[in-house]
Amino acid sequence: MKTVEATVSALLIADDPKTFATRRISEADLAFGGIPGDRHFGITCPSDSRQPMYARGTEILNRRQITILSEEECCKIAAELGIEVVLPEWLGANILLKGFPELTKITMGSRILFPNGVGLYCMGENQPCTLPGEVIQKQYDDVPHLAKEFVRAAFKRRGIVCAVESPGKIRQGDSVRILINDFLNPMQ
Amino acid sequence: MKTVEATVSALLIADDPKTFATRRISEADLAFGGIPGDRHFGITCPSDSRQPMYARGTEILNRRQITILSEEECCKIAAELGIEVVLPEWLGANILLKGFPELTKITMGSRILFPNGVGLYCMGENQPCTLPGEVIQKQYDDVPHLAKEFVRAAFKRRGIVCAVESPGKIRQGDSVRILINDFLNPMQ
Repeated sequence: MKTVEATVSALLIADDPKTFATRRISEADLAFGGIPGDRHFGITCPSDSRQPMYARGTEILNRRQITILSEEECCKIAAELGIEVVLPEWLGANILLKGFPELTKITMGSRILFPNGVGLYCMGENQPCTLPGEVIQKQYDDVPHLAKEFVRAAFKRRGIVCAVESPGKIRQGDSVRILINDFLNPMQ
Repeated sequence: MKTVEATVSALLIADDPKTFATRRISEADLAFGGIPGDRHFGITCPSDSRQPMYARGTEILNRRQITILSEEECCKIAAELGIEVVLPEWLGANILLKGFPELTKITMGSRILFPNGVGLYCMGENQPCTLPGEVIQKQYDDVPHLAKEFVRAAFKRRGIVCAVESPGKIRQGDSVRILINDFLNPMQ
């Protein structure tokens, strides 16, 4: 199993009910279900358009507890869009990692391990949606078509969603080890 | 996304605290966490040797809520071992599927959907362990080395572990649809 190291360059929470956008915090006490007070906190959640196999709003297992982005991937999105910066809060991220430019490509079942035994379990890629493009557009109202261009620019750079496997306190500045799951099956 | 159909040929529960072996039941009312009363039931569970990144016994997210085997794969294990049959109860399975000989090869994130909206979420391959070999050996005490041979014969035929994504009642005889997750990342 391959191991990669990275640093938590930002920790964020979505605790404003009016928006999915997040704000920075210095530490968080993770529980099973995610960050208490965050809009995606919960062992379960209502199904949405990403789970068309269930009637919309069905209570299902929550795999989107924590969203993680890579700082390097955010830089690439900004470069593609021709803007100075794409901040993790605009994409609703909970954790921004620095030092792992390949984050979005890691496999389901990979783990992000924090210094004090906290572990996040990768539940897959953060699938594209158009809402962050609109937030970015508002930041740069003199740059045309950002909302539309965002989806393409962010393709395979939207990071991952995780569930809390082992709870506890995490902090901005933490060093993390990422254990890449290579126990994969050949069938697709 | 590829879809496969199969049938629940047996439904089983491990409710004898003295053994991991399961016994047949006609129906089960799945909850978040698995089959109430089953030894693997729970949103969380203690970590074991399969999670060496945590101190043994740490409370972690339970991905082994439901174990599923393929009838065809059990037949192959039996054939390799030169015995008449390998029953799912000896391997501690909760569900035996018929009609999907490739079960163990399905990807994490695949779903098993039951008639009434119940859904199981594949959390990966059931990793090998030696205990079922000892149970099988006891059934065929005139055939030597079964316990040892089991691990090799069962390699990549041990089925999968699942979490309950959408709870409800399931029954022996149910037809299921299996949605194969093809939203995989190239990095390993």
